Amino acid sequence: MIFSSDNWAGAHPAIAENLMAHAGGYAAAYGTSELDRKVEKRFSEIFEKDVAVFFVGTGTAANALALSSANRPGGVVFCHREAHVNVDECGAPAFFSHGARLSPVDGGRGKMEAAGLEAEIRRFPPEFVHGGQPMAVTLTQATEGGTVYSLDEIEAIASIAKANRLPLHMDGARFANALVSLDVSPAEMTWKRGVDILSFGGTKNGCWCAEALILFDLSKAEEMHFLRKRAAQLFSKSRFIAAQFDAYLAGDLWLDLARHANAMARRLADGIAASAESRLAWAPDANEVFVVLKRPVADRLQKECAVFYEWHVPHHLNGSLAGDEGLYRLVTSFATRAEDVDRFVAGC
Amino acid sequence: MIFSSDNWAGAHPAIAENLMAHAGGYAAAYGTSELDRKVEKRFSEIFEKDVAVFFVGTGTAANALALSSANRPGGVVFCHREAHVNVDECGAPAFFSHGARLSPVDGGRGKMEAAGLEAEIRRFPPEFVHGGQPMAVTLTQATEGGTVYSLDEIEAIASIAKANRLPLHMDGARFANALVSLDVSPAEMTWKRGVDILSFGGTKNGCWCAEALILFDLSKAEEMHFLRKRAAQLFSKSRFIAAQFDAYLAGDLWLDLARHANAMARRLADGIAASAESRLAWAPDANEVFVVLKRPVADRLQKECAVFYEWHVPHHLNGSLAGDEGLYRLVTSFATRAEDVDRFVAGC
Amino acid sequence: MIFSSDNWAGAHPAIAENLMAHAGGYAAAYGTSELDRKVEKRFSEIFEKDVAVFFVGTGTAANALALSSANRPGGVVFCHREAHVNVDECGAPAFFSHGARLSPVDGGRGKMEAAGLEAEIRRFPPEFVHGGQPMAVTLTQATEGGTVYSLDEIEAIASIAKANRLPLHMDGARFANALVSLDVSPAEMTWKRGVDILSFGGTKNGCWCAEALILFDLSKAEEMHFLRKRAAQLFSKSRFIAAQFDAYLAGDLWLDLARHANAMARRLADGIAASAESRLAWAPDANEVFVVLKRPVADRLQKECAVFYEWHVPHHLNGSLAGDEGLYRLVTSFATRAEDVDRFVAGC
Amino acid sequence: MIFSSDNWAGAHPAIAENLMAHAGGYAAAYGTSELDRKVEKRFSEIFEKDVAVFFVGTGTAANALALSSANRPGGVVFCHREAHVNVDECGAPAFFSHGARLSPVDGGRGKMEAAGLEAEIRRFPPEFVHGGQPMAVTLTQATEGGTVYSLDEIEAIASIAKANRLPLHMDGARFANALVSLDVSPAEMTWKRGVDILSFGGTKNGCWCAEALILFDLSKAEEMHFLRKRAAQLFSKSRFIAAQFDAYLAGDLWLDLARHANAMARRLADGIAASAESRLAWAPDANEVFVVLKRPVADRLQKECAVFYEWHVPHHLNGSLAGDEGLYRLVTSFATRAEDVDRFVAGC
Repeated sequence: MIFSSDNWAGAHPAIAENLMAHAGGYAAAYGTSELDRKVEKRFSEIFEKDVAVFFVGTGTAANALALSSANRPGGVVFCHREAHVNVDECGAPAFFSHGARLSPVDGGRGKMEAAGLEAEIRRFPPEFVHGGQPMAVTLTQATEGGTVYSLDEIEAIASIAKANRLPLHMDGARFANALVSLDVSPAEMTWKRGVDILSFGGTKNGCWCAEALILFDLSKAEEMHFLRKRAAQLFSKSRFIAAQFDAYLAGDLWLDLARHANAMARRLADGIAASAESRLAWAPDANEVFVVLKRPVADRLQKECAVFYEWHVPHHLNGSLAGDEGLYRLVTSFATRAEDVDRFVAGC
Repeated sequence: MIFSSDNWAGAHPAIAENLMAHAGGYAAAYGTSELDRKVEKRFSEIFEKDVAVFFVGTGTAANALALSSANRPGGVVFCHREAHVNVDECGAPAFFSHGARLSPVDGGRGKMEAAGLEAEIRRFPPEFVHGGQPMAVTLTQATEGGTVYSLDEIEAIASIAKANRLPLHMDGARFANALVSLDVSPAEMTWKRGVDILSFGGTKNGCWCAEALILFDLSKAEEMHFLRKRAAQLFSKSRFIAAQFDAYLAGDLWLDLARHANAMARRLADGIAASAESRLAWAPDANEVFVVLKRPVADRLQKECAVFYEWHVPHHLNGSLAGDEGLYRLVTSFATRAEDVDRFVAGC
Repeated sequence: MIFSSDNWAGAHPAIAENLMAHAGGYAAAYGTSELDRKVEKRFSEIFEKDVAVFFVGTGTAANALALSSANRPGGVVFCHREAHVNVDECGAPAFFSHGARLSPVDGGRGKMEAAGLEAEIRRFPPEFVHGGQPMAVTLTQATEGGTVYSLDEIEAIASIAKANRLPLHMDGARFANALVSLDVSPAEMTWKRGVDILSFGGTKNGCWCAEALILFDLSKAEEMHFLRKRAAQLFSKSRFIAAQFDAYLAGDLWLDLARHANAMARRLADGIAASAESRLAWAPDANEVFVVLKRPVADRLQKECAVFYEWHVPHHLNGSLAGDEGLYRLVTSFATRAEDVDRFVAGC
Repeated sequence: MIFSSDNWAGAHPAIAENLMAHAGGYAAAYGTSELDRKVEKRFSEIFEKDVAVFFVGTGTAANALALSSANRPGGVVFCHREAHVNVDECGAPAFFSHGARLSPVDGGRGKMEAAGLEAEIRRFPPEFVHGGQPMAVTLTQATEGGTVYSLDEIEAIASIAKANRLPLHMDGARFANALVSLDVSPAEMTWKRGVDILSFGGTKNGCWCAEALILFDLSKAEEMHFLRKRAAQLFSKSRFIAAQFDAYLAGDLWLDLARHANAMARRLADGIAASAESRLAWAPDANEVFVVLKRPVADRLQKECAVFYEWHVPHHLNGSLAGDEGLYRLVTSFATRAEDVDRFVAGC
């Protein structure tokens, strides 16, 4: 059974079928087809606001383009230390932004602490040209720690960003998982709480390859057309992304898939909490479960029946693991089955 | 009927079905699945040589990454004046290469002339640091003019590149169309004649979104992994590209699709040559037909029954068009039907 | 005798002495000293307007920073084909602007033609994202051809730039030579005719190393502080540039030096015009003289008594040189002596 | 009296006079004059090895170019957390290297700890493309903490770099101060202990504007010509830098100036250590003294008689300062007078 990542699953049948359904016929290229337009409108409905939508191919592309749209010379982006942009994108944000730097902020369980963010921003006073200048704040929702910022926590970060006249980006690679976890609306979790630009991920939640950059500030849209094209992220047969989102956003499919993934994570967490052989590192809010296992146990599971990765022990857990223990990450997805969860908990 | 571009078509049924077939189940992410490996091996078979294969999302990405792998400070890339990298990629090659410049070379019907290429390279003598330094040569096969370089023409360009120790890149957005036009093997049209790196396009010939960067020099492969990831072109569910190529390269599908597109272009060209109301600007070798039409005729066709674009008049045609004439481009694809061609020739 | 370039001369005694005079004592670093402030005020006096002044180390730095301040993704800068930014800066403008491209405009004797500029800009219609987008226009005054744009010619270029909402940059590496040639005020030759940003060169006209970027639009100044620092052009002992400009701009020294250089160029041109063995390629307006010499004559002069370079024959002279003739550039400076000019004209 | 920075001093008289002496006459431009050659040879003598020398205008330029010569896509440079490249260069290293990132390593008093460096490098295993790849190690000598790495400490860092096939750069903005502190030869402090590339600073030790990039590996020199020119750091009247170094490196002037600055720092440290009102944060090795003062004392000194800056409290001092205490930096230079030191110690 597979708990390595939600991107090891394929495409949900409804999404694959919609691709099939749109394979024939002709459509205008480069994002100008009727289907592209239809999906863009759907995003505006979902967010209860006219938004600008840019399809791109990867979450890294969405994040890096979002940050490059805030580009300033000598610019500094503030993010959580464990953020995907900081540790898993091979420097793409810096490359897309011509050398902008990421300044990591600490905080337990994947969440930036407001006080830490403020302190980090203060390291770059406006009159000190040598240090560079703040240019954006980015947070991940759900976080890389499988947790979810509350609306108030988002607003607290946003108010610091605003006070420093910095745009706030949300990396929503697992946007749907966070949304159903909080049980709020997309608008409430984003622009109503101060998010300016969003990487809206579909890939990890049942699409093949469907990511969208959502701009809540339409004045930034004109430049984004050129940023995206220059970054080689404008797809000629763009409807292949549109068709995926078309099915994904139809009815509540996207939310149902996320609810399933989260439920599987909770089931996994409950099983682990009740187990003698393992313990939760912390409680999951979305579809990632962090668990402390004795290494021999983990080794056996990995050899015999399950795929999952050991994880870097974050700063706030230092000292809390025994010598023969490791931290492991288990990720569920729309495709995870309850019986696989139960078998894993039972030692496969 | 649609002659605007081969990227207005969707996906060929066999390709869409293969995507569907691979939608279920789990697979290792980021290009490491068995299907990815299988397709990479297929490329090595096709090219009769161990090649390194990198899937990317767009032709622009393939081209820009190829050129960035040859990067030198102050670098200059030599290409045809009408080359896609020069006029249609929004500066992506320069962006990916940190400011490398493109130096256009003239030549009729989309082909660089060897003498012009040599003269252009000589403008950058090694000891003159102010001008910068040559870094690569790139040619498009089939060209943006719908023509095809002969093997000897490729070799002539390659020998100039080699003499100047420059890698030779081939933009093969329409690789299959060129290949069946020349009726040679992939190896003969590439590394046997001096091509070092190839953008192998599948999208325009029946895929949704399938482009591959093919490195004939394996020593460049290690760095390309980082170049691709940094450029946000490493797809998590990479098998969605692999599955497309898997079907595309099975048997002769890819060649059959290209043969059909080329045959439709010839049918169009023959019809136009026989027509009183229009004339060929030059004879097509692949699936793009350039035709001179009186503007009122073109306007009527565009309004009533056909989608196609007016084209920039290249230098070598200056003066050969009458005042009321325009140059127009007609592109055929795997999806073009003979009856549509005939109706277009008959005035729809 | 030296006619290779005005940058082969050293520093004028008044400038060297002022450096010496300021060598002792302490001063605030990074451009904040009293002397820095004094010189900045002097620039505002000279330009009859509050300007923002940024000292940098090279003309290339001034030009590349000026263009980077206008940066747009996929951006295109329009310049004369022979412009220093296009042929002599090793791609620095593209590097500083993250891949912005230069689009050359033709025109005889080093001057962009307004019609050619307009045609070139029209190649980038706003709705065509593939081509990229215009971002700036730059002209050189005095030009690389030793000629000078008239005020009306500047205004014509500026009005095209304005109509396309593009900033106009002037590369004034030989600003003083142009100014005294036109006999107008600095304000008249710049912002009063539509110039937005100026590279003001001192080095070629008697300084060691003194270039200033002059911003007529103060709203751009804040960002330039970061652009300059990020480009490693903020000098710690900045007063070493300030001290040079302090002497250079005191009274009419800078204008006197330029008048002398121009007078020497005219003397050279008159001598050549009267000579049987050589002829002017065109009449000089400033301190560069382009002359057609028979190669054996040039070879003998270069071997026996004079340093000067053969020059690339510009397009508009094609066919006007005999087989044994070459085009040569002779540059005069503040340090050129009349007797050397006369000896050169007499064959040394 | 001035203890704000060694770059508040001007130029040493011998250096200013040599500039004056070379102001007249002509010399080949762009670093090709006889004086340039003479100084380059002098560097090879000093380092007991043929070295490639590149004059640049600022220490930031030297550092950023050095790191860009090691550029790899997704590259990561390891440096001390307080390193000038990390906190005082406005992102220039990232900009020059197209988005390379700096990964800070901790260590007391400005020195990277070998164990910390190794741990940081291990965060980027070669097979994990997402994280990026190590590309260089850089250390500062003398450090930003006013301390000096011993030869063995340098070698320890170098051996880690070598084991990971990473070039080792030394930021020698205060190279002379470190050298006389250790009382070793330039060769011993650099290439004999594994340094591959050096930023050799002259500006802070009595020059106006004289920095040199020294390459111990001559195979890197060809590319550096283009890197430097593209970065707008190739000076036309390059002899103005050469003339400064010519005087600076004549006899032992450079070492004598550094010895004086260091002696003044020791005098200051001794006075502070004996004082009741202040204490040393740690002992200085070179020309920077870090002192803990009560804020009211510091405020009075700054208001009445001395210029010096409060400093960021480094991690390893956390908790060791009282609530009303601050950390302050005092920098001496070739121009510092003993009587000023004594007056400062006495409370001015």
